[in-house]
Amino acid sequence: MEIIPKKLETVNREPLLIMLSEILATGDEILTGAVIDSNSAHIAQKLEEAGMEVVRHGCVGDDVEALASILKEISTRADLSVVTGGLGPTIDDITAEAAARAAGVELVFDQEAMSYIEDFLKTQGRDVIASNKKQAILPKGSECLVNSVGTAPGFVLRIGRCIFFFLPGVPSEMRKMLSDGVLPWIDKLQKGERSFNLVKTISTFGLAEASVNERLAGLTEKFPGIKLGLRAKFPIIYVKLYIREKDKERANILLENASEFVLNKIGEFAFSADGESMEAVVGGLFRREKATIAVAESCTGGLISHLLTNVPGSSDYFLFSGVAYSNKAKIKVLGVSEATLKECGAVHEETVKQMADGARRVAGATFGISTSGIAGPGGGTHEKPVGTVCIGIATPEAVEAYRFNFQFNQRLRNKRIFAITALDLLRRKLNPHFS
Amino acid sequence: MEIIPKKLETVNREPLLIMLSEILATGDEILTGAVIDSNSAHIAQKLEEAGMEVVRHGCVGDDVEALASILKEISTRADLSVVTGGLGPTIDDITAEAAARAAGVELVFDQEAMSYIEDFLKTQGRDVIASNKKQAILPKGSECLVNSVGTAPGFVLRIGRCIFFFLPGVPSEMRKMLSDGVLPWIDKLQKGERSFNLVKTISTFGLAEASVNERLAGLTEKFPGIKLGLRAKFPIIYVKLYIREKDKERANILLENASEFVLNKIGEFAFSADGESMEAVVGGLFRREKATIAVAESCTGGLISHLLTNVPGSSDYFLFSGVAYSNKAKIKVLGVSEATLKECGAVHEETVKQMADGARRVAGATFGISTSGIAGPGGGTHEKPVGTVCIGIATPEAVEAYRFNFQFNQRLRNKRIFAITALDLLRRKLNPHFS
Repeated sequence: MEIIPKKLETVNREPLLIMLSEILATGDEILTGAVIDSNSAHIAQKLEEAGMEVVRHGCVGDDVEALASILKEISTRADLSVVTGGLGPTIDDITAEAAARAAGVELVFDQEAMSYIEDFLKTQGRDVIASNKKQAILPKGSECLVNSVGTAPGFVLRIGRCIFFFLPGVPSEMRKMLSDGVLPWIDKLQKGERSFNLVKTISTFGLAEASVNERLAGLTEKFPGIKLGLRAKFPIIYVKLYIREKDKERANILLENASEFVLNKIGEFAFSADGESMEAVVGGLFRREKATIAVAESCTGGLISHLLTNVPGSSDYFLFSGVAYSNKAKIKVLGVSEATLKECGAVHEETVKQMADGARRVAGATFGISTSGIAGPGGGTHEKPVGTVCIGIATPEAVEAYRFNFQFNQRLRNKRIFAITALDLLRRKLNPHFS
Repeated sequence: MEIIPKKLETVNREPLLIMLSEILATGDEILTGAVIDSNSAHIAQKLEEAGMEVVRHGCVGDDVEALASILKEISTRADLSVVTGGLGPTIDDITAEAAARAAGVELVFDQEAMSYIEDFLKTQGRDVIASNKKQAILPKGSECLVNSVGTAPGFVLRIGRCIFFFLPGVPSEMRKMLSDGVLPWIDKLQKGERSFNLVKTISTFGLAEASVNERLAGLTEKFPGIKLGLRAKFPIIYVKLYIREKDKERANILLENASEFVLNKIGEFAFSADGESMEAVVGGLFRREKATIAVAESCTGGLISHLLTNVPGSSDYFLFSGVAYSNKAKIKVLGVSEATLKECGAVHEETVKQMADGARRVAGATFGISTSGIAGPGGGTHEKPVGTVCIGIATPEAVEAYRFNFQFNQRLRNKRIFAITALDLLRRKLNPHFS
């Protein structure tokens, strides 16, 4: 769905080759450091991809004076600005007021905005309350931007040389409105005279960031014009290749060649040439193989199942997971032998083999996968310190087990790396020759 | 180890009661969104704790002109500024040059800085190379700040009314230098006359943001000095109360009174007066009751288990979860009757009752909880649209079931609100009189 602001469509008839843009986050939460601002990075990426040049980010608190003042400054420097936050129904949501003050206009009730709010609340079965009406009061001359996923409509307003897009601070709402309302508009404004910022993302797992970097030495010399960035989202490291070019075809070819280079250098540790998540890649492999999966989780506590079932359509291949923290459940549900648990303990190759095989048999799945380990903070021993995990994989042919020791020393990080390691083992089994 | 800059100690002999500060991040990686800036939030927190008022964050790229220009702006507005990034040995590390330009001074070789670099490299068994020498070239009049964990020394420089602390962008180095070099200095400058910033967080679930706001109308009038902020982390809404006071005890009393007011107004929808997560609160109740829990998940796909097991020590009460997407697993593992599944379908009160009871019996747990619903995007029908969920709760006394219909229309949001709703039902059962 594209939502091009109507009034502003005619603001500028000249294609703008270089558009300077600034990003502004508002809110005490971000200013005081209670919340890390991830919106600005997302917006910066999208604006750069759209061929804009981002020159500054800023952040101010919930303070009308401070916000109006920085808006005025931006209005003299930038062609376009995306501002997030402060559009909610509460008293500390002061963005509309500050924008009106910066533009020197009054605030007026916007019937279109009110209709959107009413429609949205209706789909939620909720009533309009007084404070929602505040959200329909916008600076005069601004145009309402639809928010299809929340009550706070955004708005567009020109101040000085700069066109401001005001979006909500809630990341999901902001992202939707950015892609539906802001980016199509930039595209239209540039009338094909733009330069293209393209990005290609390669997902990797199993190498440290420094090692990835080392393997990719020489890339930027070999492919002039390509910019390299690494982005870690624990425990995945994404290799990002950026290019800014007027000729889109040339840009694509360069990017493809550079991507080939990366895949060669990273080898088996690369698992997607399109920036996909591990769970999406593994899900795709199940689908390709017409296979199904059953999981037996101990230390990962449901995370493998949660990841697998985050993928739309996963019910086609995901059958069952037994999250068995207690030995009783391991025995009763997964059929692990009591003797094995007594002899070897819960964190052991033999135990995870029986867990994987048990889950597979219980659910009648093609594959079974299991984890048992010590996520911490407690429960570690000298022999099996926190970070130890055993992983079992049952296929129609055989049952195997692996043991790893990770040193991340944080419960949530351990759960994550245990889960991704298990999925990665399965990926390598299903697709041994990816790159 | 406290490292108070010597030259700057005498800069201001008056205690500064309100010191306005700004935070600036530099570097193309942050500007283009390849990296999310987490440094600024950390610095903001530390400055606020130290009684400073943070008024702005900013970010510019690796561009001498742009950096010099924003430094000049800050030098007219703030008393103190912490700048991160651009101190390394490479060509795009241009912070010293930009600072010199903003201050209108030349760059000079700093023997003290060079000694630190040499000493650090010696401890690492590394040699000084040419590019390290660049790191000892600092703006005239600045003072070197020791970096005990990396090669890049920081520096302090007064420009206009503002004292700038330049720190490296590597988070671990920045944090160490902030605590060793910057904060002790601020403390000294304030000579005990500081004010305290305190925050209290109340966790709520079940009311929309606008309704929370409406219920809290009058709070800031009733408690002058208290600032109210709402923070949504779907589907939880956190009510945050801020206060800035010179008298710490008075601040605490005011905060407690305001918190009482909030808890009264929010009532049953408040689940923690300390900003805890739902899973931690429910876990605490299991512990208090010496109870155990078993889960049967369909549509939540393991998320309830994942949340519960994120809490350290959860193995004391979390026994088992059966994530049963397939009917076969529901029948075989959880003992759901085939007839019920045929008659009522998977998403039905009767089915989730059997699931909850089944999980409870299989694991021998005090409580059983279950979910079955339609997370989407596919699978919805007219009668049971996407967003429908049935939740079962089995206690030693009875088995109950609930049905909800949510309208968030996003798979991950649906999974989250289904899971939190299930945990909240359990919370209300275990602790009917929280607030």
